[in-house]
Amino acid sequence: MDSWVDGQPADALSLKDRGLAYGDGLFETIAVHNGAPVLLDRHLLRLVKGCQRLAINLDHSAMRTELLTYAQALGEGVLKLIVTRGDGLRGYAPDPSAQARRIMQGNPPAVYPAANAEQGVRLFPCTTRLSKQPLLAGLKHLNRLEQVIARSEWQDTEHAEGLMLDQVGRVIEGVFSNLFLVRDGALITADLKRCGVAGVMRAELLFQAESLGIPTHITDITLEQLQWADEVFVCNSVYGVWPVRAYAALSWPVGPLTRKLQTIARLLLDA
Amino acid sequence: MDSWVDGQPADALSLKDRGLAYGDGLFETIAVHNGAPVLLDRHLLRLVKGCQRLAINLDHSAMRTELLTYAQALGEGVLKLIVTRGDGLRGYAPDPSAQARRIMQGNPPAVYPAANAEQGVRLFPCTTRLSKQPLLAGLKHLNRLEQVIARSEWQDTEHAEGLMLDQVGRVIEGVFSNLFLVRDGALITADLKRCGVAGVMRAELLFQAESLGIPTHITDITLEQLQWADEVFVCNSVYGVWPVRAYAALSWPVGPLTRKLQTIARLLLDA
Repeated sequence: MDSWVDGQPADALSLKDRGLAYGDGLFETIAVHNGAPVLLDRHLLRLVKGCQRLAINLDHSAMRTELLTYAQALGEGVLKLIVTRGDGLRGYAPDPSAQARRIMQGNPPAVYPAANAEQGVRLFPCTTRLSKQPLLAGLKHLNRLEQVIARSEWQDTEHAEGLMLDQVGRVIEGVFSNLFLVRDGALITADLKRCGVAGVMRAELLFQAESLGIPTHITDITLEQLQWADEVFVCNSVYGVWPVRAYAALSWPVGPLTRKLQTIARLLLDA
Repeated sequence: MDSWVDGQPADALSLKDRGLAYGDGLFETIAVHNGAPVLLDRHLLRLVKGCQRLAINLDHSAMRTELLTYAQALGEGVLKLIVTRGDGLRGYAPDPSAQARRIMQGNPPAVYPAANAEQGVRLFPCTTRLSKQPLLAGLKHLNRLEQVIARSEWQDTEHAEGLMLDQVGRVIEGVFSNLFLVRDGALITADLKRCGVAGVMRAELLFQAESLGIPTHITDITLEQLQWADEVFVCNSVYGVWPVRAYAALSWPVGPLTRKLQTIARLLLDA
């Protein structure tokens, strides 16, 4: 499907866009099913927070309308929304009156091997570390060179995802997923106050787990804690949940809580 | 002057460009005088290193030719060169065979108050800290949200530049400049192995100083060292050298070594 820029079909972008110049913007990757964006409110909430943090003036109402119309036309697939600060003059200083640009791109549904969800995945041990930047932590902004470098570390198909640590060796997330551990029936995921992307599926699974009475902990995670996990899984808003069966010399069974949350994610994506 | 994409006049960019999607690319801001790019070889050297580090396949020969032709047509001004990894498919994984895209933008000469160079500038104390990422340190890549946020910290015209520290408080650089201290006749500038942009003017001034027998030190710099500096200045490849006269409660005179290097920079820019 054709892309849109500010609600109009387009295949090109102004060369003055600050998204190109500085990665000055945000994005969302949204599953679309039956013409509807999945987990829309959570995506929009993260985007609102990102715009606030970066002081980007986005017409949220126009964007929501466009997003719903675009998803309707796409039907099934993945909608990538990019919001940039718009065109810029020379230099880093943002124009406080600049209006954000809204870019929508439609792709067919993502296809992954069925084994990823069924038997689980092996995580590649990325040596690329996430840098500490509390001002950007949690946001899905356009400065993604760390992910590009990390994803370049492996080409084999043995590893469906890679695990990223921060500069001092804490366990943070996958290259394009968030990570959860299960230990003694509780759900544990990394605190993303220093780095990382606060995934929409991560937020939804934390919410769903809490509503089922499952204890959840958002905390710093060490590699040692990974050794003692009963179950491990990764998640994102496109594929849902993949059990993790191995990372380096560690391995885990596909456990019952992983399966339960996987089913919940699947129902949300197929609703 | 019209922009060029891959050697052809253009005002728009493919929406699939990975420069937009991930900031997956590099840039150079090059002064052009009498139709010639100033410090061309140093700009190209940094670009080559950046492409190697990010595994970007750039046709360096085509780019050099285009750059010379473009500068010739521009005559006087500032040439911004952006190199991106080119169009991308879905996901972070780079296509190893992708050919980089070359974007050239021409701007009129930068105009700054004459007082910046004459009486010196006051540096704004930015609270935005540079994050540690050795894999990207030194490169002039397109992930520049830290600079955008830092530059948003002040709007007044009292401060011509801002000073950025790293996450543990080391003195690193300006938002769009490198920083030098002078102490007991020696030149000191920050080690950029963890963060920062290795400026072309910084490299040239280090080279010129060494050839004049002036001792140079590339090292970690603390705020305390700033207090004991005899002279402080900032530099970049467009404006040359600005003496720094104040930062927070600190102030410095415009000293003789600063003036000497400022003259050298001016001669290079006006050659």
